[in-house]
Amino acid sequence: MDPENRLDRLFSPNSVAIVGASANLESISGRPLKLLKRYGFGGTVYPVNPKYESISGFRCYPSLESLPEVPDVVLVGVRASLVPSVIEDCARLGVKHAVIFSSGFAESAGIEAQEEIVRIAKSGGVRILGPNCQGLVNLAKGIPLSFSASLDTDRRPNGHVAYVSQSGAFGFASFAMAADAGAGFRYVVTTGNQADLDVIEIARHLAEDPEVNLLLLYLEGVSSGGRFLDLLRFTRSRNLPVAILKVGKSAVAKEAAKSHTAALTGDEKVWEAVFRQYGVLTLGDSEDVTDVARIFGVSRRAKGNRVGILSTSGGAGIIAADACDSVGLSVPPLEVELRGQIERFIPPFGSSMNPVDMTAQVINDPQGFRNLLALMEESPQIDMILVVLSMITGDSGKRMAEDLISAFESGSKPLVCCWLIDDEHGRSFRELLNSSRVPLFSSPRRAASSLARLFQWEMRPDLPPVEPVPGAKPLLDGFPADLTEAEAKELLASYGVPITRERLCGSLAESLTAAEEIGYPVALKVMSPDIPHKTEAGIVALRVRDEEELRNTYGRILEKAVKAKPGVRIKGVLVQEMVSGGQECIVGVRRDPLFGPVLAVGLGGIFVEVLQDVALRLAPVDRGTVLKMLEELKGLPLLRGARGNPPRDIEALASLVEAISRMALSEPDLLELDVNPVMVLEEGRGAVAVDALVVRKPK
Amino acid sequence: MDPENRLDRLFSPNSVAIVGASANLESISGRPLKLLKRYGFGGTVYPVNPKYESISGFRCYPSLESLPEVPDVVLVGVRASLVPSVIEDCARLGVKHAVIFSSGFAESAGIEAQEEIVRIAKSGGVRILGPNCQGLVNLAKGIPLSFSASLDTDRRPNGHVAYVSQSGAFGFASFAMAADAGAGFRYVVTTGNQADLDVIEIARHLAEDPEVNLLLLYLEGVSSGGRFLDLLRFTRSRNLPVAILKVGKSAVAKEAAKSHTAALTGDEKVWEAVFRQYGVLTLGDSEDVTDVARIFGVSRRAKGNRVGILSTSGGAGIIAADACDSVGLSVPPLEVELRGQIERFIPPFGSSMNPVDMTAQVINDPQGFRNLLALMEESPQIDMILVVLSMITGDSGKRMAEDLISAFESGSKPLVCCWLIDDEHGRSFRELLNSSRVPLFSSPRRAASSLARLFQWEMRPDLPPVEPVPGAKPLLDGFPADLTEAEAKELLASYGVPITRERLCGSLAESLTAAEEIGYPVALKVMSPDIPHKTEAGIVALRVRDEEELRNTYGRILEKAVKAKPGVRIKGVLVQEMVSGGQECIVGVRRDPLFGPVLAVGLGGIFVEVLQDVALRLAPVDRGTVLKMLEELKGLPLLRGARGNPPRDIEALASLVEAISRMALSEPDLLELDVNPVMVLEEGRGAVAVDALVVRKPK
Repeated sequence: MDPENRLDRLFSPNSVAIVGASANLESISGRPLKLLKRYGFGGTVYPVNPKYESISGFRCYPSLESLPEVPDVVLVGVRASLVPSVIEDCARLGVKHAVIFSSGFAESAGIEAQEEIVRIAKSGGVRILGPNCQGLVNLAKGIPLSFSASLDTDRRPNGHVAYVSQSGAFGFASFAMAADAGAGFRYVVTTGNQADLDVIEIARHLAEDPEVNLLLLYLEGVSSGGRFLDLLRFTRSRNLPVAILKVGKSAVAKEAAKSHTAALTGDEKVWEAVFRQYGVLTLGDSEDVTDVARIFGVSRRAKGNRVGILSTSGGAGIIAADACDSVGLSVPPLEVELRGQIERFIPPFGSSMNPVDMTAQVINDPQGFRNLLALMEESPQIDMILVVLSMITGDSGKRMAEDLISAFESGSKPLVCCWLIDDEHGRSFRELLNSSRVPLFSSPRRAASSLARLFQWEMRPDLPPVEPVPGAKPLLDGFPADLTEAEAKELLASYGVPITRERLCGSLAESLTAAEEIGYPVALKVMSPDIPHKTEAGIVALRVRDEEELRNTYGRILEKAVKAKPGVRIKGVLVQEMVSGGQECIVGVRRDPLFGPVLAVGLGGIFVEVLQDVALRLAPVDRGTVLKMLEELKGLPLLRGARGNPPRDIEALASLVEAISRMALSEPDLLELDVNPVMVLEEGRGAVAVDALVVRKPK
Repeated sequence: MDPENRLDRLFSPNSVAIVGASANLESISGRPLKLLKRYGFGGTVYPVNPKYESISGFRCYPSLESLPEVPDVVLVGVRASLVPSVIEDCARLGVKHAVIFSSGFAESAGIEAQEEIVRIAKSGGVRILGPNCQGLVNLAKGIPLSFSASLDTDRRPNGHVAYVSQSGAFGFASFAMAADAGAGFRYVVTTGNQADLDVIEIARHLAEDPEVNLLLLYLEGVSSGGRFLDLLRFTRSRNLPVAILKVGKSAVAKEAAKSHTAALTGDEKVWEAVFRQYGVLTLGDSEDVTDVARIFGVSRRAKGNRVGILSTSGGAGIIAADACDSVGLSVPPLEVELRGQIERFIPPFGSSMNPVDMTAQVINDPQGFRNLLALMEESPQIDMILVVLSMITGDSGKRMAEDLISAFESGSKPLVCCWLIDDEHGRSFRELLNSSRVPLFSSPRRAASSLARLFQWEMRPDLPPVEPVPGAKPLLDGFPADLTEAEAKELLASYGVPITRERLCGSLAESLTAAEEIGYPVALKVMSPDIPHKTEAGIVALRVRDEEELRNTYGRILEKAVKAKPGVRIKGVLVQEMVSGGQECIVGVRRDPLFGPVLAVGLGGIFVEVLQDVALRLAPVDRGTVLKMLEELKGLPLLRGARGNPPRDIEALASLVEAISRMALSEPDLLELDVNPVMVLEEGRGAVAVDALVVRKPK
């Protein structure tokens, strides 16, 4: 833990002051006191309000200065205009942590007010949570520093999930619903406007708690891509799963997110790439918060994706099998011997196939369900167990719940249950299972998705290598402001990217010589920094077959170039080998404002133009990552040799992308790069950059 | 209603006998009595069991014969071996309806026993529900004929949904959970093995009830595609939405479905096509049953897809906006004037953009929420209203619930709510909303999906034209057993499908003349019924440029044909025009065992071979349907003229497919047809079948 930046006291204060404490215990500035009392907070609570002598049995103080000690945390619920003076008091007194509930700062017109409190806080070493947040709760120690009504209950859903949410209302509401469904949390923290402490810093702190099994984040954006990636690297070093509900996917939500908080919302496709690359579990809904908290709240991991389904309803079993299949899990047919063992415990009108239809008759044999669970636990054919129960009620239901609990506690495979039953008949069983932390899901689909997340975490990719420190001086410095194709490819070649054989020629005679050397047919392209789109301008001639054709073509394309624009700069005619018989691909780089260079790989032609079929990753990527990217492409069969074509040199393509990744990292001024096409030749024959366009930062 | 086949008495019996009635009221043969009593059934109940004098206050009879009258319905819960004699009694006495709960028939080894009871029942005019079913409930009249524990409650979730499920356990369990969530049902019927009455016949009967708002089906398969389509046509004539949970999508589920009941499970892609074509809403999970029952249970329809979102949590509002976007709903930015009106009721740190962030402060103005709801109801910019509430508790929560109810009752737009709150704090509000039938969803995603279903129903396609009665004698009768390309295209041409200009030639001389007439370049193809795959066999020559090339080619391809197979039959060489400059498409027909001819349309080349990008529909299809099919294709931009190519003659393609649809219906022996490629030329220039392969039923 970073010793200069300890947040321990924020989460475990010995004393808490509540500035603006209200005697109305249901108000924003009254409820924190009510909650601290209800949770039996063991430290000291100081209500601060000159209007009262005491509130709810606590002595009330007129000001922070009048307190007998410097409190570890100050909760601030006063109106926005009064906040700066409170923070000034905190700074003067040496308060380390302030949690500001008050609204009316950067989320509306108060951006300057917010900057002011940050300035005051910084000067006094006060770390701020908020403003415009709902505070936090430490459930491990039973310490609420919040006004959320969701905490105003006797239930203490203590568990192993750390949940950090930018949105206060959504964070605590989704926490409360997850707790209803049996999920257990260790911390819930809402960060609001993040004037100082943000989701990343809080998450980084909580991730150090060895009792945390899952880090769950609600994010509208982050202010620093680098710090975010550092967090993900740290959690991976701990093998701590991270699940993120990142909002702002749709354009309108993006607008709303900007107005709602003050964080950057990066490009969604880039976020998806980052999540994939770093093995982040992605969520989209409040119910995902519940489900991921349930499945990762117990630290049991899947060794593979083979699910054994036990159901009391054939129909529900089939639905579960369909659901597993649709999220990439396997429901393998069981081997004959195991089926024979299963059949000893199910009636003849059941099914031992998987999904195993135990039928409701399983309740007639007190040992039946227990034995079937044991068979699943022991079978090497099964990695995870999904139990789907229907309206099993009364004593039978109780016994099945108990059998489930003992199987869960004695077993080591992930075991989850979906009990399709109404509240009146099933509530007691649900409570029984929840109190034993057996992951319980309200539908077959949600159970299957949760198992799929478990498997996804098991299959998490290796972390990308750490970004290398650029060695030498960037090469782009030696190039002109607008690069022609020839210059762009010269740059590529310096990084080891194979390019077409070509020569820039200043005259027809030179072109003829070059063509002889390169060998017909050749391509001719006029090089001008003023005409980036050559084909559209008609200054490219392909498959020039011989000297005669070259003579005819040369003048024609030059003439077109001259006519394209008044005062056009012409650097010569590029004579280039024709590369044929390969699969056209495209490799690109775009510098994301949040995450830096992003690499794109796809097949050329209709795949990129019509189907937008590209795979993205942050640089750096290694060859293994490129191969994974290619697997995401719909057009991959073409590279592998579909339609009677030979397999292409995928390894060479991977090396080429790896080289471009190095270049992207070494050239800070490179904003965009399109290598289009890259011709990927037959296996063993390489891949070559045929055309390239570089966009660089203005000099 | 069909007067010869009335099921009225099954759903509204005046008298019910329970054969094998048990004094254990929690057993399968005891609970039906318990439920009839609990629901206060107004008719007569006759327990039948020689072991008892009375059960639970009802006089018990030794046999069906000893009853004072012929009961309207007989419930049968005895063991399988005793069922035939019970049905014999029913047949002899003239009982019209028997509901058989007993297991051990077609779902296991008892297929013959099942056939026997069907035979007996038929002979005596007894209609059977089951065996291996859980019976039914008529909630409108409070009549349970079932042993399901889900009915053993004081709650009567009476509403407008008719739910028919093959699976008894899943049907009643998902009903109970939906009822928990506030959905109202009129009928729940489970059909089990469907020895006689099946889902289709029950559904057809219930669809005639004008009080039914939604027909909800759980299907593993159907035994007759034609009857299923008739049902869908009938429900459409009533404008009754149909939602179907069709299981058996995955291969393993398909296997399980076969063992679970005795129905055919058709090809999943064909089912999808049927659902799309007939505007069926598709479900995949128990939670979908809940949600679709909630949204269609109230008869309010969407006029468009523009959603106005009101939320008390900015975060939850953004999640809802993302969810709407991802299911094809629009969350339009609101116009300035409306925003101004909204801003009068929200604090400055809220947002009037849509999603409207009312913030939790909305509770401070008793009129605020009410007025915002009214603005949404009145605004012509909004078609549907989605309210997302967070942890609003106590009196404020109650007031918001009441505001919602009065807005729902006085408004006409679909209005749904998602209240993110735990049970302890929110239960009373949920109950309030549920009792007023305000559609309430447990997450933003589920609310959005439900609104999307509402919109999907609004956008339902026109029904396909009724299948024409084939007029003349099928033309295939006049063709040989194995058709060559030339013969296949002759058949196509008879139905008005444009084909290439071509002539079958018996000699080189004839070929040369044909080529002169058609005009070079031409294609040469050896016609042999023994070589269906010509290109692979090397017996095709394309782009033959002149007489000399034709002379060289002719002998070569004939030689290859002769070598291809000993004793090969050669019908001549087809000389064919070369069609160039079009977009290659593929049109196919496959005769589905359940639904008859299925048409497939796709783009050729990689689209069909690599991307499996085809759209399917049952025949007949008209031009409008073909245009809809094309809209499903990823490659559609190519037909519309992407990548610098001209727009293609989509109208001509539609006519061509329509003609093939006619042919598919008129030729009962046509099993498969591949027209590949169809060349679709520039707009106005038509589309032409270039090659075709016919597979027909063996003569």
